[in-house]
Amino acid sequence: MTTTPDAAAAFARLVDQFTLAGKLFAARMQLNWDAQTYMPRGGAWARGEVVAALVEITSGLIGSRAVAADLAEAQAGADTLTPVDRADLKEMHRLWAHATAVPAELAASQARRVQNLFPVWVRAKAENDFASFAAPFAELLAVVREIAAARAQLLGAAPYGALLDHFDPGITQEMVETVFTELERFLPPLLCEVRERQARWPVPLRFGDVAADRQAALSNLLAATVGHRPEHCRIDIAAHPFSMPGNPGDVRFTARHDVDNVRFSVIATLHESGHAMYELNLPRELAFRPAGRARGSTVHESQALSLEMFAGRSLEFLSFLAPLVERTLAAGDAAWSFSNVVNAWRRLDDGCVRGQADEISYPLHIILRYRIERALIAGDLAVADIPGAWNDLSRELLGRVPPTLAQGCLQDYHWASGYIGYFPTYAMGAVLAAQLFERAVADDPTSLQALSCGDFSSYFHWLRVRIHERASLTDFATLVTDATGRPLDTAAFKRHLQRRYLEEPLP
Amino acid sequence: MTTTPDAAAAFARLVDQFTLAGKLFAARMQLNWDAQTYMPRGGAWARGEVVAALVEITSGLIGSRAVAADLAEAQAGADTLTPVDRADLKEMHRLWAHATAVPAELAASQARRVQNLFPVWVRAKAENDFASFAAPFAELLAVVREIAAARAQLLGAAPYGALLDHFDPGITQEMVETVFTELERFLPPLLCEVRERQARWPVPLRFGDVAADRQAALSNLLAATVGHRPEHCRIDIAAHPFSMPGNPGDVRFTARHDVDNVRFSVIATLHESGHAMYELNLPRELAFRPAGRARGSTVHESQALSLEMFAGRSLEFLSFLAPLVERTLAAGDAAWSFSNVVNAWRRLDDGCVRGQADEISYPLHIILRYRIERALIAGDLAVADIPGAWNDLSRELLGRVPPTLAQGCLQDYHWASGYIGYFPTYAMGAVLAAQLFERAVADDPTSLQALSCGDFSSYFHWLRVRIHERASLTDFATLVTDATGRPLDTAAFKRHLQRRYLEEPLP
Repeated sequence: MTTTPDAAAAFARLVDQFTLAGKLFAARMQLNWDAQTYMPRGGAWARGEVVAALVEITSGLIGSRAVAADLAEAQAGADTLTPVDRADLKEMHRLWAHATAVPAELAASQARRVQNLFPVWVRAKAENDFASFAAPFAELLAVVREIAAARAQLLGAAPYGALLDHFDPGITQEMVETVFTELERFLPPLLCEVRERQARWPVPLRFGDVAADRQAALSNLLAATVGHRPEHCRIDIAAHPFSMPGNPGDVRFTARHDVDNVRFSVIATLHESGHAMYELNLPRELAFRPAGRARGSTVHESQALSLEMFAGRSLEFLSFLAPLVERTLAAGDAAWSFSNVVNAWRRLDDGCVRGQADEISYPLHIILRYRIERALIAGDLAVADIPGAWNDLSRELLGRVPPTLAQGCLQDYHWASGYIGYFPTYAMGAVLAAQLFERAVADDPTSLQALSCGDFSSYFHWLRVRIHERASLTDFATLVTDATGRPLDTAAFKRHLQRRYLEEPLP
Repeated sequence: MTTTPDAAAAFARLVDQFTLAGKLFAARMQLNWDAQTYMPRGGAWARGEVVAALVEITSGLIGSRAVAADLAEAQAGADTLTPVDRADLKEMHRLWAHATAVPAELAASQARRVQNLFPVWVRAKAENDFASFAAPFAELLAVVREIAAARAQLLGAAPYGALLDHFDPGITQEMVETVFTELERFLPPLLCEVRERQARWPVPLRFGDVAADRQAALSNLLAATVGHRPEHCRIDIAAHPFSMPGNPGDVRFTARHDVDNVRFSVIATLHESGHAMYELNLPRELAFRPAGRARGSTVHESQALSLEMFAGRSLEFLSFLAPLVERTLAAGDAAWSFSNVVNAWRRLDDGCVRGQADEISYPLHIILRYRIERALIAGDLAVADIPGAWNDLSRELLGRVPPTLAQGCLQDYHWASGYIGYFPTYAMGAVLAAQLFERAVADDPTSLQALSCGDFSSYFHWLRVRIHERASLTDFATLVTDATGRPLDTAAFKRHLQRRYLEEPLP
């Protein structure tokens, strides 16, 4: 007990340091939002420098020897801490470990390269030009591999697993392998069966073109329906939809409105609205503190996908959405009849773009990326060989080859952003979303019925209490078990796909 | 000479620290831009925390004992440094002195209060409600007074002078008093004389209302005319026009487009374009370094005002502007004839708003604010008494009393932003702008003629070489003397006003 005053002082110092780091993270996320929305192109070099500086200072704040000493001191007196503070201390340990594993200059170098690579990727994608992307991406990859090796050493994991852990504590590479192996076995035959069933459906009517500004108005309406208010949320335009984390009370996100693809705008808006709702409901009293952050990327994606793919593609919600869109954008257009919307929304796609993939193909898109990332990090695949490897895997998993790089290996912003080890969380997130959705509806069947009136309040209430407000106050496994009664597995996901795609009739 | 290696190492460490600080400054300016343009209202509290964190970290970076030791070490070997590095070292000294003078928590407290006060000011102004503004402003003022006292002690100046020095090194309170005393003597009789002359002019035709989006298009056209390119510059909407400093290659600014006041939109766009041009032309190789920053707020305002009031209100430019606006916004509207535009642009205003004041009244608006600020900092005026004091001074200096607080003491964002000691630089900047403009035109008379074709290249070439590219590589006095052949005085300003307002005929 003599350690208590020292331990309390050490913990207080840690809270100061990590809260500062949380504020720098908020700044960094806002600068990233700006870089992808409003920043003039000529600001890219300087922005890279600024973001790198924030990364470097953060490493210094939380990766120092003083922090290590305070962590040890606070840990010695951990039994005198409140449960919330203990959870905070545990997260501090994790952040410290990741920060000390990676030298500050290496982290800054990654940030700088990302800022410079991003506009290169935008242009390369538009111009179907892999060569211009390859060299700077190879340089970034070299830095990421160094970071992965450094983290792996500290965590006692394989390099790829160490990258996963950074985004997603609690998700190991073994868990990913287990889930992906099951999905690789389950999904392809299901795809065939569903394709056969859908061949007997009428060909869906094509949705007409809609001007971008009218789609933007619909996006705002959908965000409001879901429960977002302008006081805390705004939607801007970016090449790739994303939401801005880390800024309490300011959960803005982006959308993209292609004139000939209203459906993408709707789906992306729901996806990002889900991310934003998680951020909005994080406990305000833990703002900027490690335990107050979202639990990791699988949980974050589960929140996005549960809104986009589970609630947002339910017959109940589609029966609300179809007449809403018809009224708002396309008065009298039969394509927006409930029946045609369900037909179109359920259709297996025959494209190659992850962001527009159907629910069944979606995890296969992820497995493709996972295999390439694993090989890149292991050093088994050269950057120059990505397009070939991508096409081979696309043929193997999806049965088709992308016609352009923009629909192939340049389609996603993640690699250009240095997010390697992130993709698996999309499929893990879908699996988790299924488990959460199944349980939420079982606990409160009216929450599903309410979606047919566009009322998400019961559904989000269930998620808020069990997921959002628990932030990082508990680990991934406990969070999932407490919410759903069992650890993460693919059973609910499989049941969901079978029910929706083999049993639900076309209305 | 034995000190050289140590001195070189110390200087290199200083460059690292101060460059990091420069990058945090860039981040802070971007976050401030965002807070005033796109941030949802609910993000204000967190944004205040983030900005305060950046301020606190900056103080730690440049105000530490290690920096003090390195400054001493580098100074000892200063004769081995290049002139550029010597200038950098001198600026580092100044920034260090200001940072050490103010405890980090005090600086952070100011930043936090500003973030919270700003939205209060916006609402108070809209609702003509001084009471809601007074209490939080009094708290901010108390912090500013503490900061002023701390700086004063370190600089051996009076508190108000210490605030001036922070914004504007090289401008002392004595210089301000000298200039303002002359202007207080010179301007009021000139106002009477000009008012009498203008009474004989025809009443100017009123400009028609113009939708905000069409004004925005004109703003973009004007910025392009002046020489800004979308690659480096963008214009967004904010309650008060301002430009974003500190971000190399990204010199965006804001405008406001009131439907019934196109003229304000034009004038504000030119003003901010001038600020932005200074930032754009700062030497890129000194990005983020102290010597690479703008020389101070009087020089910065001189660049804005030289474009807004000198070049931008010359007969030459107005002969280009009038038909441009007529073509773009108001085909066939006689109000946009050259003669009517000159008549309207030259007219003494009878309002109370600084941002819309004529050139002659403008410094009197500043003197009013200066007197109030001086009294607030000296403790001779209570916040509650500001509205009364404002009205008294307005009657004394301008001969009229503002009908609302939005046109009175709540009109400007500066106090709500903690910018006390900034206002004098507007009038000092106008005086400097006159001296620069007179000399630029004398050196190259074609630069003035070119404005009638909307060609600003020669004019900005003159400024770029003499002002912009010299950044903070020299002190204020040297900069002015090198550019114009003599120290700052009011002679050119007086000549300019007499020529333009008493001699130039109405076309």
